[in-house]
Amino acid sequence: MNNTSSKLLDQGVEAFASLPGIGRKTALRLALHMLRQSPDHVHNFASSITKMRDEIKFCSRCHNISEFHLCEICANPKRSDHKTICVVEDMRDIIAIENTQQYFGTYHVLGGHISPVDGIGPTDLNIESLVKRVETEGTEEVIFALNSTMEGDTTSFYIHRRLLKIDVKTSVIARGIPVGDELEYTDEITLGRSLLHRTPFDNSL
Amino acid sequence: MNNTSSKLLDQGVEAFASLPGIGRKTALRLALHMLRQSPDHVHNFASSITKMRDEIKFCSRCHNISEFHLCEICANPKRSDHKTICVVEDMRDIIAIENTQQYFGTYHVLGGHISPVDGIGPTDLNIESLVKRVETEGTEEVIFALNSTMEGDTTSFYIHRRLLKIDVKTSVIARGIPVGDELEYTDEITLGRSLLHRTPFDNSL
Repeated sequence: MNNTSSKLLDQGVEAFASLPGIGRKTALRLALHMLRQSPDHVHNFASSITKMRDEIKFCSRCHNISEFHLCEICANPKRSDHKTICVVEDMRDIIAIENTQQYFGTYHVLGGHISPVDGIGPTDLNIESLVKRVETEGTEEVIFALNSTMEGDTTSFYIHRRLLKIDVKTSVIARGIPVGDELEYTDEITLGRSLLHRTPFDNSL
Repeated sequence: MNNTSSKLLDQGVEAFASLPGIGRKTALRLALHMLRQSPDHVHNFASSITKMRDEIKFCSRCHNISEFHLCEICANPKRSDHKTICVVEDMRDIIAIENTQQYFGTYHVLGGHISPVDGIGPTDLNIESLVKRVETEGTEEVIFALNSTMEGDTTSFYIHRRLLKIDVKTSVIARGIPVGDELEYTDEITLGRSLLHRTPFDNSL
């Protein structure tokens, strides 16, 4: 796409186009939308985002986003009593799991997954602090709830190995056929895994 | 979707969700992306957008975006000599028409179309300044290049009526079957119109 005739507009378009999943055409649409808004609206938009980046804090224990030193979940003694840590990639996964209302322990946010292609190694993730938590908190179980991808599995496996010396149970959330899905349309790998990890019938409901 | 546990994050999500075509789920993804960027990057992003809104100027003649008092096209005497004004809804349409390299006159940006549903009447658009231009510039032809929608047609018709008293030709860009399209898949209205407005065969290539 050609540049517009205005450098200022081009810079605005560049800014929007730097966001993930936003191409130059959408970026131009967003920039022109901004030009039609009042200056106050645009300043509020910009300050909401810079304020978020500058002032947001992360929980010192689980790296979840937090207003205080400890996040809501870590600060809740009932949750900490469970001695279970659920390892997730980012805080969106916490929202998803919290919505199920099926998990009562604490979380640990890695901040991504091991991905050599993107130059992300184990040291770029919050893995050391997890190992330290498991060592000091008397954790009974670490549940891996990472994405069901090559990178997610690699990350789970790496952490599993790091925890081998510590007396702690590790588990991974079940992979199988999504509830409500038809067998016919399920891919072979999922179907194969769900056969391999079949559960006794009375536990399955 | 539930709110996150952080007010600051919620405000960032709200900001992104206020953009057209961006829902709350994408907004959360964008906000979390911003949290992973360096503070400098986020400040540059915000300032590009506020700077664009604060400093961008519009051409005093055609309302196109411009760095100066007159935009590049209006400032070009060759373009003004054509005594033709092409009326468009916004500056993206100018980019599209300029890319065809088939138009040599000047433009007039309305800033939208008449749409009672959205509370946009003729006075919210740059119509008065167009009428004034036609009266004073000795314009020979006004070409309507608005979207081929109910609102676009209404706007063209309204301006056409406003220009009736002035001695100026008005025309509308041709509607018909897009070049390369198959007849079979063309909708009836387009096909009907393209029959009605058929052109002599020797002009059609």
